[in-house]
Amino acid sequence: MSAPLPPGSTIGILGSGQLGRMLSLAAARLGLKCAIYADVPGPAFDVAQRSVEGAYDDTAAIAAFAKTVDVITYEFENVPLAAADAAAPHAPVRPGAKALAVSQDRLDEKSFVSSLGLPVAPFALIETPEDFATALAATGERAILKTRRFGYDGKGQARIGKASDLSGAFDEIKRAPAVLEGFVDFKYEVSVLVVRAVSGDMRFYDIPLNTHKNGILDTSTVPSPLSAAHADRAREIAARIAEALDYVGLLGVEMFYLGEDSAEPLVVNEMAPRVHNSGHWTMDACLCSQFENHMRAVAGWPLGPTDRHSDVVMTNLIGNDVDAWTGLAAEPGTAVHLYGKADARPGRKMGHVNRIAGKTA
Amino acid sequence: MSAPLPPGSTIGILGSGQLGRMLSLAAARLGLKCAIYADVPGPAFDVAQRSVEGAYDDTAAIAAFAKTVDVITYEFENVPLAAADAAAPHAPVRPGAKALAVSQDRLDEKSFVSSLGLPVAPFALIETPEDFATALAATGERAILKTRRFGYDGKGQARIGKASDLSGAFDEIKRAPAVLEGFVDFKYEVSVLVVRAVSGDMRFYDIPLNTHKNGILDTSTVPSPLSAAHADRAREIAARIAEALDYVGLLGVEMFYLGEDSAEPLVVNEMAPRVHNSGHWTMDACLCSQFENHMRAVAGWPLGPTDRHSDVVMTNLIGNDVDAWTGLAAEPGTAVHLYGKADARPGRKMGHVNRIAGKTA
Repeated sequence: MSAPLPPGSTIGILGSGQLGRMLSLAAARLGLKCAIYADVPGPAFDVAQRSVEGAYDDTAAIAAFAKTVDVITYEFENVPLAAADAAAPHAPVRPGAKALAVSQDRLDEKSFVSSLGLPVAPFALIETPEDFATALAATGERAILKTRRFGYDGKGQARIGKASDLSGAFDEIKRAPAVLEGFVDFKYEVSVLVVRAVSGDMRFYDIPLNTHKNGILDTSTVPSPLSAAHADRAREIAARIAEALDYVGLLGVEMFYLGEDSAEPLVVNEMAPRVHNSGHWTMDACLCSQFENHMRAVAGWPLGPTDRHSDVVMTNLIGNDVDAWTGLAAEPGTAVHLYGKADARPGRKMGHVNRIAGKTA
Repeated sequence: MSAPLPPGSTIGILGSGQLGRMLSLAAARLGLKCAIYADVPGPAFDVAQRSVEGAYDDTAAIAAFAKTVDVITYEFENVPLAAADAAAPHAPVRPGAKALAVSQDRLDEKSFVSSLGLPVAPFALIETPEDFATALAATGERAILKTRRFGYDGKGQARIGKASDLSGAFDEIKRAPAVLEGFVDFKYEVSVLVVRAVSGDMRFYDIPLNTHKNGILDTSTVPSPLSAAHADRAREIAARIAEALDYVGLLGVEMFYLGEDSAEPLVVNEMAPRVHNSGHWTMDACLCSQFENHMRAVAGWPLGPTDRHSDVVMTNLIGNDVDAWTGLAAEPGTAVHLYGKADARPGRKMGHVNRIAGKTA
């Protein structure tokens, strides 16, 4: 189980999106094959050795797929636990079911992080309007209501400015089970990208500063202005989470930086048990990208170097941002990554660019 | 014809080896699809959108393949001219037939380079033993006999130390039409990696110093000790060749450096109308690799940056060198590239490593 999978082995990936695509490309550098399982064809199908279309809740099909690969990983955290359970007898699932379970439910995730003694924003469960008063008492009137499950890129979220907003917001998310989170007055968001090997060895990429537009990641910039001491603290928080989950692979942990005067300068926002959009800069500013390191970990390989050789700003290409591709391709110091998606719908991640410069810090 | 192919277009590649594989991976970053045509399945099949098995001399099959893609390129210079001709009515073939014709015959190649007024070693044609005397008069007794066609990695070559060696050497290559090349007493070999766009725009990577083992490239090191003036001259030579061929794509031109006291310090050894093994270091020391730039040129895109952000030594993994993969994967500052070939036969290129360090020059 802990011997590295030799070149020529096959890694099964659940999900056919851009993350699965970039994981496949990274695995190919190492002589590893990839097989994709997804409910719809997607960009990963074009670069994988083979692809299977099937529903994520078709446990028989998932089990059959697992028998044909050497290990299984996934590109998104909403893989049904039943799918991971169906695969596990036939191939190791990495990261494991615990990481999946914890991260696909906001309440469980916050409870878990909090149970480790790590800082999170105040939060409370809302299942019915009867929960409003208690929840608001816990979080304060400036808060964000988020569905417990299946939220991403700002979807399933509503901001509350005062107590009376809550009822409408709850209706807006169709009274789905939700978490009310106290608003955190942060200076900026950072994320820790930690990769953990089967052996327990851990490595960290430099910490990017992230900005958002319309609830979607816009840029990740490295180096960030975070002080060395706070960067140490951020890594310590992510490491605690990775160890508690006996995590294997790349883990992204988003944190709010509240300023050095704050009693708790770093507060965990959310985690993703997978390669993370805020780590796409590693493709061009590091020798070994987050995608390669995830695949190394999943395949039981030694981790690759996480050093950064250049400064970098990653910018997402959302929707028709991608129409500017010819101009971007001609920009000096710029690496263009396009995901091969045909239809540039608004809000859809179509690609990203990494603009690099000489390393300053 | 000169409008860039939009993302989602398909590039056809003739050849299924590691170069086709790395070309496919580079094209995928840009949202381009690849289709492989090859006489045997190979490592490129595992990462391409689709693959077709067929003989290179099956012109009907090549024409049918060409109809399904937007442009055609190749990973090796021994693609039959008839194949390029069969494809050309249906899709542009880049680099074009002239580059292919010139580079697949050593005599034609040397005559062509020489006709541009560029320095090559003395050479002469040998078709029968009657040609020995004239040939030796042209080259001197220290010489290398090489088959006109289908030689690579030192295959089809024999060294001559004195005139009487020639007869045995000619028998050894089975009296195939050959070129006798005068021995060049060089200090070291370098290569120029130039990429030329459909527009005629040209860019150069830094010039590596190359070493060989058993006739096969062993290492490429950048920066090389070549002076700035000689590097300029080397680029000028390669540019002349690229322009004379109206070349599109990445061209590798190997040159011998004879020392600054030599009347002609740089002599062209050979050229390859494709991505070149001595350019594999660009994958980890540049933002845009030779593979991506070849695909950009072939697809009519603007060229990408050829700047180098790091010093680098590329080392080929030949035959069972690849057995050391776990150790190599754990080395700091080292990027491992494995080609996904199952059988590590002696002399077979199985992968390469790029060892990078901070940029010094």
